[in-house]
Amino acid sequence: MNELKFLEPLIASFEKLPGVGQKTATRYAFQVVEKLSEEDIAEFAKVLIETKENIKHCSVCNMLTTSEVCDICDNEKREKDKILVVKDTKDVISLEKTRQYNGLYHVLGGLISPIDGIGPDDLNIKDLEVRCKDLSVKEVILATSLTPQGETTALYLEKILKRDDLEISRIGYGIPAGGDIEYADELTLRKALSSRIKL
Amino acid sequence: MNELKFLEPLIASFEKLPGVGQKTATRYAFQVVEKLSEEDIAEFAKVLIETKENIKHCSVCNMLTTSEVCDICDNEKREKDKILVVKDTKDVISLEKTRQYNGLYHVLGGLISPIDGIGPDDLNIKDLEVRCKDLSVKEVILATSLTPQGETTALYLEKILKRDDLEISRIGYGIPAGGDIEYADELTLRKALSSRIKL
Repeated sequence: MNELKFLEPLIASFEKLPGVGQKTATRYAFQVVEKLSEEDIAEFAKVLIETKENIKHCSVCNMLTTSEVCDICDNEKREKDKILVVKDTKDVISLEKTRQYNGLYHVLGGLISPIDGIGPDDLNIKDLEVRCKDLSVKEVILATSLTPQGETTALYLEKILKRDDLEISRIGYGIPAGGDIEYADELTLRKALSSRIKL
Repeated sequence: MNELKFLEPLIASFEKLPGVGQKTATRYAFQVVEKLSEEDIAEFAKVLIETKENIKHCSVCNMLTTSEVCDICDNEKREKDKILVVKDTKDVISLEKTRQYNGLYHVLGGLISPIDGIGPDDLNIKDLEVRCKDLSVKEVILATSLTPQGETTALYLEKILKRDDLEISRIGYGIPAGGDIEYADELTLRKALSSRIKL
């Protein structure tokens, strides 16, 4: 579209966001030129750059943070003998919302996926091994997803982290709250059956 | 979420985009910090500001453009005796895609909507009146939507633009291509019936 040429660079930038195709990107671009104020845009551009500049990975657990060590690792009140292993920072945020866990985390930065050429060395696994060698760590909870990649990663971690006085567990999998058995996929149902609890 | 504090300004900016709530904005913010390169972000911030700075409204038809007069109004080959009236620039883009119209446009910048306190004076209607007083203009096509606001605007424009040698028409309304009669709403069906064409 010749008439949209002047919006193309902005549309291209919006298209880099997850799940945003040309139509949505165009809608966003029109919002920018038609509705948002100059101040809104200046602020938008500023926080984009600032956020990117200030972001760091916690030197202990690898989660996203703005300081050398994240608030969780730095918190005296967290239980230092538990490490919950997740794929990325978003998982930490979701788990923190439950307010049910008071230990530490370890962010892998991805999952083992031979198809995509991602092996253990591409992930933040070495640091986890070092952390787990500290004998004060008593429990590692693996919270990778119920996918081939998540399963492979969990199996691999279980194998390399194994030591006699370290408890290794995986979070529960099964029918989600509000989920219908009718619509659950086979793998979820199988997991739900095999992880049944005696009442 | 305390852990997300450093992402909050960026999330707030993304939430200003149409249809973007907190969840989507958070996903976008994570994309920025985890996936996009420094160059991507610098470019994003730059085009946001540049696009906003360079945008103008065409002094003739009011559509968005980067020059004083838009490419369409400035095009010698367009038929200057036809003016197609639309709500906004997005409508022009959609109509241009059909390659079926070769006249000029007029962008109202909204529709009359008493509920929202938008009257004729809040829209770009005065300029349309002036344009239509030019006797070389032979046809005005109203392409406002089939909504109470679109109907009110079309009726109002029909009334004020009326003159003997000016043809005023409205685009056709009815069942869309691929649309099922079964699922069409009552108003669309009524319009489809009343605008039936003898074969």
